[in-house]
Amino acid sequence: MKAKVIIKLKDSILDPQGLTIHHALETLGYKNIESLRSGKFFEIELNVEDKEKASEIVDEICKKLLANPVTEEYQFTIE
Amino acid sequence: MKAKVIIKLKDSILDPQGLTIHHALETLGYKNIESLRSGKFFEIELNVEDKEKASEIVDEICKKLLANPVTEEYQFTIE
Repeated sequence: MKAKVIIKLKDSILDPQGLTIHHALETLGYKNIESLRSGKFFEIELNVEDKEKASEIVDEICKKLLANPVTEEYQFTIE
Repeated sequence: MKAKVIIKLKDSILDPQGLTIHHALETLGYKNIESLRSGKFFEIELNVEDKEKASEIVDEICKKLLANPVTEEYQFTIE
């Protein structure tokens, strides 16, 4: 099973990297960008057959290691 | 329009961050992870009405700034 995990900063949290990239794009002439938020992506291959079991594991992994519960939120899909 | 961009290292490229996280998870007792690859995620709000136009802009942005053509590959969706 393959899990695709997206970790984003919570909306209330300032995203300096996103702001910097947004500013750079404006300098390059891209004026039609309203906002740009950056985050992390993980692709996890699990040798688990049951989708529910895989989902439990990935949820735990996100809570314990991949996402900072104070500043970040996560979402994932299992294929 | 909102674009969701995922940037990953090409498969042939070593992913030290992914390996480190994979090792940490094994130490935490998660033995059923075959592989873990890390990447970047961007969420871009564009004030463009036409989906095709938005897609062209995001593709250009990925090529010019967000993805390193030598070591990374990108994919995106437009909503």
